Amino acid sequence: MTDPCYEVRPIGWISSVLTDRSAAPRQPEENAPAARVVFHPAALPAAADLRVGDDVVLLTWLHQSRRDVLSVHPRGDTSRPQQGVFSTRSPDRPNPIGLHTVTITEVSADGITVRHLEAIDGTPVLDIKPVR
Amino acid sequence: MTDPCYEVRPIGWISSVLTDRSAAPRQPEENAPAARVVFHPAALPAAADLRVGDDVVLLTWLHQSRRDVLSVHPRGDTSRPQQGVFSTRSPDRPNPIGLHTVTITEVSADGITVRHLEAIDGTPVLDIKPVR
Repeated sequence: MTDPCYEVRPIGWISSVLTDRSAAPRQPEENAPAARVVFHPAALPAAADLRVGDDVVLLTWLHQSRRDVLSVHPRGDTSRPQQGVFSTRSPDRPNPIGLHTVTITEVSADGITVRHLEAIDGTPVLDIKPVR
Repeated sequence: MTDPCYEVRPIGWISSVLTDRSAAPRQPEENAPAARVVFHPAALPAAADLRVGDDVVLLTWLHQSRRDVLSVHPRGDTSRPQQGVFSTRSPDRPNPIGLHTVTITEVSADGITVRHLEAIDGTPVLDIKPVR
């Protein structure tokens, strides 16, 4: 795909004990550990009103994903037919943006801690929004 | 913010009767019209398994937003104190990615129709994911 493109820039990065995509749970319910979001210093004013207990959506850039994949076997199960990636949660997709609904458990000067996050260490964070 | 950046490319565009940001409802519940997502031809295989009745999250690029805004008055109400944008749904934010939970009401060869979408005509679409 050519045509227009836009630049996204990390507002922070994930710090996690998960260091390897193959070890990351496929769904957050499956024993994902707590993790931190460490903010880019320039983004700190945007995070000033995040509080312990807030339910938020983290948008991440799944930097180890393949962007040329348009169809996958759901959950990597080759016995199931391939599906277009827009019908799946595959990290491999044209714009590999991850959505993670999490609860904030701690707020510190440079970041937040959240519960049950399946993203790996070093994953760029693009945005944080309140859950409606 | 400088540092690393990543390129996102539209997988489609919104076609809507909403043509003006100031006319767009602030929340989708507030009388947003139906709209279409017209796919980039190269992205069509990724959309092949979307079906009428599916509940999906559209990720859009809010192309008319300001990216240098880190704090806003919630819902534009200047009587309320400013908040960091990560605690709000303001379209003005460092990476102006919109999240829209919608139901697919029609599928055609080149796109889909969805119910109640507050994005304006011409908005780039970055991704579509199933609602968990």
